[in-house]
Amino acid sequence: MKKFINNVESLLDESLLGFAKANANIIQLNSQPRFVKRINATKAGKVALISGGGSGHEPLHTGFVGVGMLDAACPGQIFTSPTPDQMLAAAEAVENGGGILFIVKNYAGDVMNFEIASEMLSFENTSVLVSDDVSLPKTHSAGRRGVAGTLIVEKILGAAAEQGANLTTCKALGERINRVTASMGVALTSCTVPAIGKPTFKLNDSEMEMGVGIHGERGTETMPLATATEIVDHIAKIITDELKPEKGQQALLLVNGFGGTPLMELHLIYELAAQFWEKQGVNICRSLVGNYTTSLDMAGCSITLSLLDEEMVSLWDAPVHTAVLRW
Amino acid sequence: MKKFINNVESLLDESLLGFAKANANIIQLNSQPRFVKRINATKAGKVALISGGGSGHEPLHTGFVGVGMLDAACPGQIFTSPTPDQMLAAAEAVENGGGILFIVKNYAGDVMNFEIASEMLSFENTSVLVSDDVSLPKTHSAGRRGVAGTLIVEKILGAAAEQGANLTTCKALGERINRVTASMGVALTSCTVPAIGKPTFKLNDSEMEMGVGIHGERGTETMPLATATEIVDHIAKIITDELKPEKGQQALLLVNGFGGTPLMELHLIYELAAQFWEKQGVNICRSLVGNYTTSLDMAGCSITLSLLDEEMVSLWDAPVHTAVLRW
Repeated sequence: MKKFINNVESLLDESLLGFAKANANIIQLNSQPRFVKRINATKAGKVALISGGGSGHEPLHTGFVGVGMLDAACPGQIFTSPTPDQMLAAAEAVENGGGILFIVKNYAGDVMNFEIASEMLSFENTSVLVSDDVSLPKTHSAGRRGVAGTLIVEKILGAAAEQGANLTTCKALGERINRVTASMGVALTSCTVPAIGKPTFKLNDSEMEMGVGIHGERGTETMPLATATEIVDHIAKIITDELKPEKGQQALLLVNGFGGTPLMELHLIYELAAQFWEKQGVNICRSLVGNYTTSLDMAGCSITLSLLDEEMVSLWDAPVHTAVLRW
Repeated sequence: MKKFINNVESLLDESLLGFAKANANIIQLNSQPRFVKRINATKAGKVALISGGGSGHEPLHTGFVGVGMLDAACPGQIFTSPTPDQMLAAAEAVENGGGILFIVKNYAGDVMNFEIASEMLSFENTSVLVSDDVSLPKTHSAGRRGVAGTLIVEKILGAAAEQGANLTTCKALGERINRVTASMGVALTSCTVPAIGKPTFKLNDSEMEMGVGIHGERGTETMPLATATEIVDHIAKIITDELKPEKGQQALLLVNGFGGTPLMELHLIYELAAQFWEKQGVNICRSLVGNYTTSLDMAGCSITLSLLDEEMVSLWDAPVHTAVLRW
């Protein structure tokens, strides 16, 4: 294993200290229990948005804390759910009279721990479950996983909450976004989890792993390495079958790198995906390309299409000021 | 070689099309010859800033074109200088009465081609040469290389030009920034150039390459892999010997990933570097952590310290709106 690291035990804390120091004008770190909260005061009655999940997906979620997006994020150990005490402490720190909305990626550990926190919390609270990964069937026993589409839910709900939407409205909006958002990922290499010290799975030089999640797990199928166009066509067809966009439908296209793939390749994937849907008459009206929901050093990417209505587009465009997303 | 690619010949053009489409509200691509220019109109008399260099370092330079930074960028083939016709066409497209300032990383091919363009150009023009890489001695026959510090020069000059500084002032300011900026890089792996198809150099699992540039070339020394603290101390001492910061000196600290290293590790490196200089009484007043000057998929990072005066800090803080830097 080759990483910049002192030791596995201290990696997360040392890294969070650096993140907090480099972004001290936007967020503040609480070390015990671990959470990151926005510095900027909120209006009384604003719904407080809290997300969280295993570390190793940076900049998700800590990089999305700030004005117009999350109020707090709870980082777990690498690829491990945060614990309820983190969520409770974060909720105490950011609740401002409007209740708490938890944004939860659909993974068993995350779901369980956010549920425990929800039950223990004295504030009014509810949650939105993100399940945008269409590489698994809808009927999968654990449900579909929450992956890169999570940031779209976080951005749009962040704007809605900032503009005064109440808890019920935010929850309903979040569930609507989740229903119109579909993602699928492909990996060229596994990632290496520091505590394990070697790649989680092996691929030979002529293979790729289709339908991967973001925790270094195997995907749904090991396939022969294909051209970029073939890969995009494969994924885009599955997403299209799921969302069934109509001609003229507005959409946000997100090409998300898993950490080890250069921007040059991500922009190539974006171009091919945009061409695919433009040919079908979809109006790609908003775009995002970069490493936003990563899997440590995995080479690979995911494609997300989100069929936004006018309200969602307007909320996507609303001002945001976090460590990573700013406009 | 495992990459998202259709073929080596079309990679750059397909990728630039994607970059331009995803950022159509900020930049515009000219395909023949290749350059990217800002869309937003400039005030008459504004100095036009043009940079460029080999591709493979994304988001440098195309990701820094926009209001408050570059007016245009000329991407060459991967790790290959752009040609004078690109620079001439870019200059024609963005000159607005204030003359042209070329910002050139110190590499033989770039220097030569920008000089040719400068001589052929009918507009008033001059250049700033960036040479922030202190892994090579000042007396090196080709001079020191321009690396991650280039974006600091581009950002600060971009703000100065936007505020009306003339060509002479911009050139002098750029040279001052270059003198107070020092960078050094370390790699854990080589990158793989698509046209070559295999890693440029080999390192075994217990080695790292100290003093690397950004073109997949070997560094100044192959060393045993060390802890993050030891790596930061090694680099920070060399930068300190070069810049000799005084107690209370304000500085910008940039930790730049080369493309294949997770944000978690970059934030750890940032924390250790910030601690190193804080102990010496340096005031780290501005920070940037992320993949900004990359070397395709290389795992590794560089540390840059820039001793900014009040004017430079104020220009660093001035509004910027590019694909990547926005505040």
